[in-house]
Amino acid sequence: MKESLSTRVVWMEGSVVCMIDQRLLPHAKTILRASTYQETTTAIRDMTIRGAGTIGAAAGFAMAQVALGASESGFWEEVERGAAHVSAARPTAKNLFYAVERVLASMRQKPDVAGARRRAVAEAQAIYDDDAAMTGAMGEAAVSLIPAAKAVLTHCNAGWLAYPGIGSALAPIYRAHQQGRPVFVYATETRPRSQGAKLTTWELAQAGVPHALIPDTAAGAIMATGEIGLVIVGADRIAANGDTANKIGTYTLAVLAKEHRIPFYIAAPSPTFDADCPSGAEIPIEERDEREVLDVTGYLAADSRQVTVRVATPGVRARNPAFDVTPVRLITGFVTECGIVAPTPEAIARFFAEARSARAKKEMARA
Amino acid sequence: MKESLSTRVVWMEGSVVCMIDQRLLPHAKTILRASTYQETTTAIRDMTIRGAGTIGAAAGFAMAQVALGASESGFWEEVERGAAHVSAARPTAKNLFYAVERVLASMRQKPDVAGARRRAVAEAQAIYDDDAAMTGAMGEAAVSLIPAAKAVLTHCNAGWLAYPGIGSALAPIYRAHQQGRPVFVYATETRPRSQGAKLTTWELAQAGVPHALIPDTAAGAIMATGEIGLVIVGADRIAANGDTANKIGTYTLAVLAKEHRIPFYIAAPSPTFDADCPSGAEIPIEERDEREVLDVTGYLAADSRQVTVRVATPGVRARNPAFDVTPVRLITGFVTECGIVAPTPEAIARFFAEARSARAKKEMARA
Repeated sequence: MKESLSTRVVWMEGSVVCMIDQRLLPHAKTILRASTYQETTTAIRDMTIRGAGTIGAAAGFAMAQVALGASESGFWEEVERGAAHVSAARPTAKNLFYAVERVLASMRQKPDVAGARRRAVAEAQAIYDDDAAMTGAMGEAAVSLIPAAKAVLTHCNAGWLAYPGIGSALAPIYRAHQQGRPVFVYATETRPRSQGAKLTTWELAQAGVPHALIPDTAAGAIMATGEIGLVIVGADRIAANGDTANKIGTYTLAVLAKEHRIPFYIAAPSPTFDADCPSGAEIPIEERDEREVLDVTGYLAADSRQVTVRVATPGVRARNPAFDVTPVRLITGFVTECGIVAPTPEAIARFFAEARSARAKKEMARA
Repeated sequence: MKESLSTRVVWMEGSVVCMIDQRLLPHAKTILRASTYQETTTAIRDMTIRGAGTIGAAAGFAMAQVALGASESGFWEEVERGAAHVSAARPTAKNLFYAVERVLASMRQKPDVAGARRRAVAEAQAIYDDDAAMTGAMGEAAVSLIPAAKAVLTHCNAGWLAYPGIGSALAPIYRAHQQGRPVFVYATETRPRSQGAKLTTWELAQAGVPHALIPDTAAGAIMATGEIGLVIVGADRIAANGDTANKIGTYTLAVLAKEHRIPFYIAAPSPTFDADCPSGAEIPIEERDEREVLDVTGYLAADSRQVTVRVATPGVRARNPAFDVTPVRLITGFVTECGIVAPTPEAIARFFAEARSARAKKEMARA
């Protein structure tokens, strides 16, 4: 990754939340400006922005908008209503709930409206800044996982578009590339929304990291060649036992990685972990509109116009679970801001404690 | 399948080879007419028609065109040249080479040009008719595999568009449906060319078989729910040891089926088996144009126009192996015209012998 490359994916200007419209990438890099928390929530729901950390950061900023927009008289009631609205945007990514709770908790320390508003804006920014710092630490912690002579396979997009800073799964890849180590990445297309084809390849091309795109169907065949030395992906929510919800297709890659004895890592910092969720069975999995499967959105070569084409047979129905759950037994380890965490409940609990105390220290320093 | 449904996918009218243009399905059912063996070969290469048996049938008809078009004076030389041209259309599907050899062998029994021409036309038709009969037998042989209370998962298109008659993998599904047994089919999209979304769902809709489409990435998650009782797919070439080349993504499904203890069957009659190929390592795997991965072809809702859109980041490179090899250890059994064949070299060798003797008897009856 070139040092000069801007990786700012969502930010606030006054009371406006600005974000790269990821629905238009890779063809156009357009900034969408959401003036209200409702607009920001819609942008989360319709995947204008996506990716666990980016959803969390946007939700934090949406909470700041809630605070800024709530009336003096009905302030706390409106804040609660706004928080419920933002929380309902998408069900799976833990970061969303983490961010809403964190902003609320911070606001509650200042019961006066002006103070609570200042806290909301500051805390939302702190979430973004903390997340970005965590991805930097993850890159350092996991750079040694990058194989010297084999390729890395990743799924969906877990780069800086998905997680503020330098991304989650792509963090060690960017770090290795920065250090001048050879890295080659296979990006899976990631149907139905093709985040691999549209976002990961765009990020890697911007950063100059050598890579190739493969259809999701080719992952097994590529692993069978022996070319892949590491599979690393992000996460939307990690249960207390280590079961991990991530983009649909992740579970398949984990099964394939086990079959080929390839290390399979989940890269996600503490805000993606859900200590209150005992196992994957309790993670709510979003089922999205079947049109995402029936259709494909791309660009016409002739005039660069973005269009959606119907691929499937007219009238056919489709299933479209947006995420799947990879059981912890298939996971080699977790790349976190506190280093590599083993896939055991004990190691995960220790990591929770460590992350909590680090956050408390940071909050003390800020206060 | 409604009894009245026409499943004729490729046929000859005089010296013209007619075929359903599968590149235009599901939106338009158009007949392409190939006047020369070169045009028929192009139709195989550019996937106007595809699927192991259909490729074989088309190659047989192309050989008839070779015979009809070759000059009296240079007849056998032109036939050899034509056979080489047809054989070079695509490398993986065994049926293509089987059909070319079978027509050549039949022609060689009549060294006079007029006799050889008649034999070529008759043998090409016999290949089609034999193939169609075999799929009927396969449907009978495997109907009992269809689970009573669970769904069937299939990949790519292995219906009558892919194999003359009632298809290979879809044969037992159609048979069960005809018998009034409940059947539910999950069709995988099958990127990059989306044969599941475009062809299998079209076939199943035509036949009234209940089904749903899933992205390739969802196969693991759907299997994990316990809904799937059988995975059945076609084949492009089966080696003597049972290793099977089929559409890219098949291997992944086989690994997933093993993980979930779901029976995994390959449905293919004898012309797809290659006794001279010891194992999967010797099967040539076609790598197709990367644009198949970078782009998607579909229809505009507005005017039903077929268009190709660019999905991936401009400039990105893609890998596009069209097939993968499923090792025999992952295969529960083979559905053939002689019944279910166990995945052992001995059972496969017995099946070769049985199929060869059945064919010899048939040839005797014809002569």
